[in-house]
Amino acid sequence: MSNHPLLTQPYVSFPSNHITQEEMIIFLKNLFPNYEDWELAERMIRNTEIDGRYLAVPLDELAKDYTWGERNEMYRKTAIEMLVPAVMHILDFNELTPKNIDMIILTSSTGFLMPSLIAYLFNALPFRSSTVQIPVAQMGCVAAAWAINRSVEYLKANPHHNVLILSAEFSSAVFQKKDCELHNLVSDSLFGDCVSGAVMKGKPKSGDSGYSLEKTATFFKHNSINYIKYDVKDDGFHFFLDKNVMHTVPDLVPVINQMILEQYQITPNQLDFYLFHTGGKRILESLSKELELKDNSLRHCKHSLRYHGNTISSVILDIFTQKISSQSLHHDMKGMLLAMGPGFTAEMSCGRWLVY
Amino acid sequence: MSNHPLLTQPYVSFPSNHITQEEMIIFLKNLFPNYEDWELAERMIRNTEIDGRYLAVPLDELAKDYTWGERNEMYRKTAIEMLVPAVMHILDFNELTPKNIDMIILTSSTGFLMPSLIAYLFNALPFRSSTVQIPVAQMGCVAAAWAINRSVEYLKANPHHNVLILSAEFSSAVFQKKDCELHNLVSDSLFGDCVSGAVMKGKPKSGDSGYSLEKTATFFKHNSINYIKYDVKDDGFHFFLDKNVMHTVPDLVPVINQMILEQYQITPNQLDFYLFHTGGKRILESLSKELELKDNSLRHCKHSLRYHGNTISSVILDIFTQKISSQSLHHDMKGMLLAMGPGFTAEMSCGRWLVY
Repeated sequence: MSNHPLLTQPYVSFPSNHITQEEMIIFLKNLFPNYEDWELAERMIRNTEIDGRYLAVPLDELAKDYTWGERNEMYRKTAIEMLVPAVMHILDFNELTPKNIDMIILTSSTGFLMPSLIAYLFNALPFRSSTVQIPVAQMGCVAAAWAINRSVEYLKANPHHNVLILSAEFSSAVFQKKDCELHNLVSDSLFGDCVSGAVMKGKPKSGDSGYSLEKTATFFKHNSINYIKYDVKDDGFHFFLDKNVMHTVPDLVPVINQMILEQYQITPNQLDFYLFHTGGKRILESLSKELELKDNSLRHCKHSLRYHGNTISSVILDIFTQKISSQSLHHDMKGMLLAMGPGFTAEMSCGRWLVY
Repeated sequence: MSNHPLLTQPYVSFPSNHITQEEMIIFLKNLFPNYEDWELAERMIRNTEIDGRYLAVPLDELAKDYTWGERNEMYRKTAIEMLVPAVMHILDFNELTPKNIDMIILTSSTGFLMPSLIAYLFNALPFRSSTVQIPVAQMGCVAAAWAINRSVEYLKANPHHNVLILSAEFSSAVFQKKDCELHNLVSDSLFGDCVSGAVMKGKPKSGDSGYSLEKTATFFKHNSINYIKYDVKDDGFHFFLDKNVMHTVPDLVPVINQMILEQYQITPNQLDFYLFHTGGKRILESLSKELELKDNSLRHCKHSLRYHGNTISSVILDIFTQKISSQSLHHDMKGMLLAMGPGFTAEMSCGRWLVY
């Protein structure tokens, strides 16, 4: 039917501690009792339109004096605990065993290990010794879309292979309780923890369904390192997000328009579905406006943000999961996937929902 | 002539501080005046058969009380300072401009940045906004061989593309002056700093020469995380090398034998050249013995180790540079490339030296 690699149904799992935004507001207010313009901070936190998130670290432990080493060890343990059952679930769903996986791409930017989490997965589950690994720590929010696009290249060269894409993000492991600028408070209220994954197949079989990637594109904006970054300090990673990241929308719109025009001879607002990870509400709305998308086109993107927060490289797979659950995808529908992250880098693709 | 991706001549550059092994022995003896069995330590350091290395941090600054954040910033600055001229040299040599590069893979495990060093290169040189980036921090010594093998997959899918492979390693930025176990002292005497790179071409042109990769292979050894790793502590990355890494040789030999047999119907000792990065002298000699290689087969591997130390992910490109300089490579000669790193992971390939 199609010779394009297929992203199959993802699996998404969250840690057990659910934190409402109201609880987070009280937590931050108590943490910074002398914050000078709390009304502004609270208004901006509410403007994220996030109702709550799941965090691996309970709220009453978040402000404890854990060192970098201790936080990184918490990250390692929690990631393995959640990744192993997630991988088993993903393989079972696809009727595959670890032996059927030819490449693993694991994206995780909230801790650092060498060897990476992939080595721990190899030891927990019987993957082949010849399975290729791609561990990625430096791509932040764009990482899963990046992994999907790199898998497309790999599967074009190896069409009979299967790639296992995984994301493990624990923003609660990089919480910095001394950072009290306005942008820190907003970030503290934005990110959620999540483990997710999906299989990408070079040669889908009868009965498979998924997002068939027909075209991919990368966009890097020069001189924008400060838009989204970690400051690496003596006590760990400090996330920094500049509101100038909004300025990337006018750069991206022509790239998106061109990709969709070349592939389908239509405009982006004529597509049937959108899997957009922009990081926050304002940039999502700005992109929707510039692309002249119909109302409600991004409802699953907004739903993911509202109920799970920004789960970093897991967002795309979370949105896709919700889109599939909503049963609004039908065979041959055209759509696109987009994520933004540090660099500034965007990775995007267009394709169809296909039922084989 | 051949449809295989070509690894062209690398460029290798070293920082200006040359440290002889004698100077390092005096430095370590002064740093640990009460070390209990110094004679054993000195004997093991001399057994590395390293004459000297180049380090970015001068010896009289190596034991200063720099914090993790300060060391990481030194790493960032030095890496950019050395990478930009290295990239210009590599592109000039290949008669390419930044616009001709479709993908950049940068391997660097001695610091952590998000976005990665690739973002800084994009800003220093006019790469296209559509150039794909693969930053890798978690693969250590195997990373350049890994990058070469990943490029082969990418270039099979995109045969008209060029990949720029880069390595930037500054072990002096992760020197830990409080670590005084025997294995620490040996490691302190082993690693050298280096920046290196090469272009890989999907479609070589008349006049090109290089290593044409005909077959690639990956090997992961289960339950060997402790062989080569970083312990991530409050003051940074602490390198750990277990002598059990020697036990990987019997696992690797059949994988190598099979790869060479399948591709050329010969045994590995019938090949014409070897680009082996094993990390140290003992494992190199063990591998040579098990593969029954002829005397002197690994002289360029040993030369790189003796004069530059273990330059982590730069070693393979350094050995290849020396092999080319020796003018011992002739058209159609068969050879293989191998590197080992954390996981435990090995990446290998076989191919020919081709002059187009």
